[in-house]
Amino acid sequence: MSRFVARCLLSGLLRGPAHPQTQPARFLSLARPVLSFKDVSSYSLRSHTCGELRAVHAGEDVTLCGWVQFQRKQLFVTLRDSYGVIQLVLPQDKKHADMKQTLAHLPPESVVCVQGIVQLRPIGEANKAMSTGDVEVAVSKVEMVNKSKSLPFQIRDFFQVNEHLRLKHRYLDLRGSQLQHNLRLRSQVIMKMREFLINVHGFVDVETPTLFRRTPGGAREFVVPSREKGKFFCLPQSPQQFKQLLMVGGVDRYFQIAKCYRDEDLRQDRQPEFTQVDIEMSFVDQRGVEQLIEELLQHAWPDGKGALTLPFPRMQYKDAMKKYGSDKPDTRFGMKLNDVSDIMRSSGVTVFERLLKDNSGNTIQAINAKQAAPHMKNKDIEKLQDLAKQMMSKGLSILQILPGGEMKGAMAKHISSPCRNALLQELQAEEGDMLLLAGGEHLKTCELLGRIRVECADILETQGVQLRDPDVFNFLWITDFPLFVPKEDGSGLESAHHPFTAPHPDDLDLVYSHPHKVRSQHYDLVLNGNEIAGGSIRIHDAEVQRYILEEVLKEDAAVLHHLLEALQSGCPPHGGIAIGLDRLMAILCKADSIRDVIAFPKSHAGYDPMSGAPSQLTDAELQPFHVRVQSESS
Amino acid sequence: MSRFVARCLLSGLLRGPAHPQTQPARFLSLARPVLSFKDVSSYSLRSHTCGELRAVHAGEDVTLCGWVQFQRKQLFVTLRDSYGVIQLVLPQDKKHADMKQTLAHLPPESVVCVQGIVQLRPIGEANKAMSTGDVEVAVSKVEMVNKSKSLPFQIRDFFQVNEHLRLKHRYLDLRGSQLQHNLRLRSQVIMKMREFLINVHGFVDVETPTLFRRTPGGAREFVVPSREKGKFFCLPQSPQQFKQLLMVGGVDRYFQIAKCYRDEDLRQDRQPEFTQVDIEMSFVDQRGVEQLIEELLQHAWPDGKGALTLPFPRMQYKDAMKKYGSDKPDTRFGMKLNDVSDIMRSSGVTVFERLLKDNSGNTIQAINAKQAAPHMKNKDIEKLQDLAKQMMSKGLSILQILPGGEMKGAMAKHISSPCRNALLQELQAEEGDMLLLAGGEHLKTCELLGRIRVECADILETQGVQLRDPDVFNFLWITDFPLFVPKEDGSGLESAHHPFTAPHPDDLDLVYSHPHKVRSQHYDLVLNGNEIAGGSIRIHDAEVQRYILEEVLKEDAAVLHHLLEALQSGCPPHGGIAIGLDRLMAILCKADSIRDVIAFPKSHAGYDPMSGAPSQLTDAELQPFHVRVQSESS
Repeated sequence: MSRFVARCLLSGLLRGPAHPQTQPARFLSLARPVLSFKDVSSYSLRSHTCGELRAVHAGEDVTLCGWVQFQRKQLFVTLRDSYGVIQLVLPQDKKHADMKQTLAHLPPESVVCVQGIVQLRPIGEANKAMSTGDVEVAVSKVEMVNKSKSLPFQIRDFFQVNEHLRLKHRYLDLRGSQLQHNLRLRSQVIMKMREFLINVHGFVDVETPTLFRRTPGGAREFVVPSREKGKFFCLPQSPQQFKQLLMVGGVDRYFQIAKCYRDEDLRQDRQPEFTQVDIEMSFVDQRGVEQLIEELLQHAWPDGKGALTLPFPRMQYKDAMKKYGSDKPDTRFGMKLNDVSDIMRSSGVTVFERLLKDNSGNTIQAINAKQAAPHMKNKDIEKLQDLAKQMMSKGLSILQILPGGEMKGAMAKHISSPCRNALLQELQAEEGDMLLLAGGEHLKTCELLGRIRVECADILETQGVQLRDPDVFNFLWITDFPLFVPKEDGSGLESAHHPFTAPHPDDLDLVYSHPHKVRSQHYDLVLNGNEIAGGSIRIHDAEVQRYILEEVLKEDAAVLHHLLEALQSGCPPHGGIAIGLDRLMAILCKADSIRDVIAFPKSHAGYDPMSGAPSQLTDAELQPFHVRVQSESS
Repeated sequence: MSRFVARCLLSGLLRGPAHPQTQPARFLSLARPVLSFKDVSSYSLRSHTCGELRAVHAGEDVTLCGWVQFQRKQLFVTLRDSYGVIQLVLPQDKKHADMKQTLAHLPPESVVCVQGIVQLRPIGEANKAMSTGDVEVAVSKVEMVNKSKSLPFQIRDFFQVNEHLRLKHRYLDLRGSQLQHNLRLRSQVIMKMREFLINVHGFVDVETPTLFRRTPGGAREFVVPSREKGKFFCLPQSPQQFKQLLMVGGVDRYFQIAKCYRDEDLRQDRQPEFTQVDIEMSFVDQRGVEQLIEELLQHAWPDGKGALTLPFPRMQYKDAMKKYGSDKPDTRFGMKLNDVSDIMRSSGVTVFERLLKDNSGNTIQAINAKQAAPHMKNKDIEKLQDLAKQMMSKGLSILQILPGGEMKGAMAKHISSPCRNALLQELQAEEGDMLLLAGGEHLKTCELLGRIRVECADILETQGVQLRDPDVFNFLWITDFPLFVPKEDGSGLESAHHPFTAPHPDDLDLVYSHPHKVRSQHYDLVLNGNEIAGGSIRIHDAEVQRYILEEVLKEDAAVLHHLLEALQSGCPPHGGIAIGLDRLMAILCKADSIRDVIAFPKSHAGYDPMSGAPSQLTDAELQPFHVRVQSESS
């Protein structure tokens, strides 16, 4: 900054009436409805924002600070700040020739502070497309604060810019209206959640440590070497243990907007650090937590997104798998799964008949992609077949419905006539529909068709057939999950959720006899096919917890000694939930990626293209932590 | 939990009227003044808290959940929850013999849910010391939820327990009223800050990354190995770069309750992870930021802590050093520094005379510890002398004032009579006072006496002479710091604050000619002798920033390439501040240590005695990060 500008700023030459008004404005603001009358120019060098000027301000002397957006005919300059744009009119008299020259030729995105008088635009020149379009500001003083160099992309059309460039120059990307909107909405939604939790329901915001001890099975935890040789902290995946310990400690209504860490595959639109609304309560049951979350979301739901109807619908895990082939079904569209095992049992289609005969755990499932036939290209069908091969090592059977209920497809000529009719009826199939069938182990088959269902929707929407209304928000509780699932390698059971989840009270005895049959008190909240929250009632009995850790999960309970001891020390019954805030905001903002609701995200590949993190460190820099990078040979 | 209890809880057997009332209560709450009518029993199995019952509740059927605190005469049980205690009366009839037996003999800190009728205590038996002392609850149903084992310490007198034991069983420590109070107040103060910043002044709460690139000179940063061999993230010491980039990005009013990391000496009551209220604004000057912080603190100041008077007093750095020998003076007490160089120049005290002659930069400073002589023991004086030797490699000259202005001390017999009189007058010394003098380089001498001043106050307060009122909150802005200070090794200059701090606008030319003379636009906020906030107006001119990094600080500017480029891309003038939240809360809670305002702090030595973090990891666990622990030989 030039000394002159610095002095002007400091001496208040450029200061409008903002400072003198600060004190009364604050108290006024406090008395007004808070969200509508924020004093965004308090403590600032500006008197007004560019976006707020209206006809009612005509005649006022204002000070504005912002970025030069356009210049026109050496007469007009559009000035932008974070709240909008305003048209400046440059003086045309000789005395102000220098000012005109400066403003009319500044590179776009340069920063200026201007003083001037608000005036109504001449009749016929109002711009109805601009919220400030009735007025303009006749500039009387200008300070050029910071001249911009030529930029790698323009702020207006940054959405066409490739993402690497956007992330490399994130500070420019942030100026765009979309990110401005997303970050401000995120701040607002979180604040409303806090008001609901703290002010209305007496929750306590407690910060828990992020430098913690590695948890058993924490394969995706980042490690942090300490200065004590050989000892490491870990960055926790969630505050799970701490929130339970807070319950033992009598902080009976806890929440935290918690930063969590997971060193994982980023391809599925995840981030190594992410944020969850972490909640835990004592003396609560499952429905209590669910009700809290429903009302929390209702309270925090942004204006203009429609009202939420409570309670949210509920579905048991096994029904979700049966109907949608997914534990996070998108209920905005149909195309549900149909069990056609009985129909296919004597269908003439040998492969299906044999499947069902071989194993009573096998099933034949079908979905009807309504009117999909005209839209499905060969490459789309190949994509579906590839997915089936990948997930079940076999293809899908696809039948296209022709006029009169005739069928086309590899299976068509084998299928018996009664079976064909039964299929048509069961799936309510008509000309133009496409039936997709798969058979095999029940759960796997449902999972495959669940994925196929979503893929079909994606394909059809690419073709312009809208199945999922982006303005509809379908919440759904999924409940009654299994407590344990078989490990991938078949060597035993592992927790479906986490080892602290309580068994369903009706299934307590089964823990000791048939653990694989135990249902849990775990619940997920699904929004439009995304899991946006998950939680459970926790085990508060030390003996049950120890048994599950040691006898069912075969874990070393010693590292959880402190938790087991806490459960013995007067632990109340408790439960909680965590909302995935990044995902929720991405859905609310209709963003393609959670990267669009995070100020400084890492790239797909886990890098920060702006700063170059992560970066190489020298041996000397690593020395205090007693670690070194593995040599090639080691 | 037993199946029976689990069923009871789930079936709602134990549920009082809380659930059915939830919906209307919520809306009622929203309309009421928020802080006074929190619905802390919503969504819960309890109908009321133990602490809320009063005479007005008499006759109501209530469900309470809590911890057994005392039992008396098999008749009374005191039940505690996080909101208070209530007396339960056990039924004495035969039908309820089992219940009586259970409740009367449960180990303390066991968790129970009870149902019963609130009744007025018999006349004469009300307990005025208890807020619920007018009533008791006649128990009709009990569920023993969790039987506590014998605990390592009692909840009531945990303050006498050694800190290691408290930290090891933090979940018990948290049940104590002091930590309950501190954590709840912390949550409340932060919430009020958020309301002020977001709802009143339109600030945006933005989360910035904690996995970042190592910054130049970041010697105290934790490192986090990534899965790419040889590449590391760092946990940042503050969001400094991100908040400046947000300003470039048009998020012109940013704040965040930010987790920060510093791998440092914990002896000075610091923590490896700590929390700051991080604020940054565009188009603001120094006074604007100061005013924001003053009003923010006034708004968030807890009830019962007295009103804050604005504006806070201000003091220039050089005056603070001159008067208090500290850049964070505790102004609650006097004992200020006096420059007695002129008096001592011809005092007859050779060592001082020679000091002043040798170097015009030398000075003799003195403080008068009023009425300290009777309280100072030999060991106290030794402690002061040790400090002086440690800081300046020489002792203090100490003079005790005797009746008639006579002096006692090693220097007394050398001092000339006029000098003695001048000293008595300058320091307003009387019988019983103690004068402490030191000489040498000006700044060092002031710093020494600043430390001696505080040490004297500590000693005197140990002796029962109160100098610092714990109920007084003296805020003070310290301004006009030097921008650069000489490096310890004398090899050049380093930033007094950080390299992004803007020079004082009057001193801009000096940056290029006499950088050591440049004042900065850095400001600290001091509360009762603690720096609780620090900030600055930042450099927004890329050329000035580059010059300071490369030419003054001799740093490699390449690693800050992204920041320099951002400054060239239309960067607004901006500034900010960070409040040390842990320290502020410790002062507000009159806690000895910031550990008492943090839910799960690390110990003095940086450990978590509860979980055992940091812990050893195996080579296999480190393998994915391509690091290994240095072998002894390497």
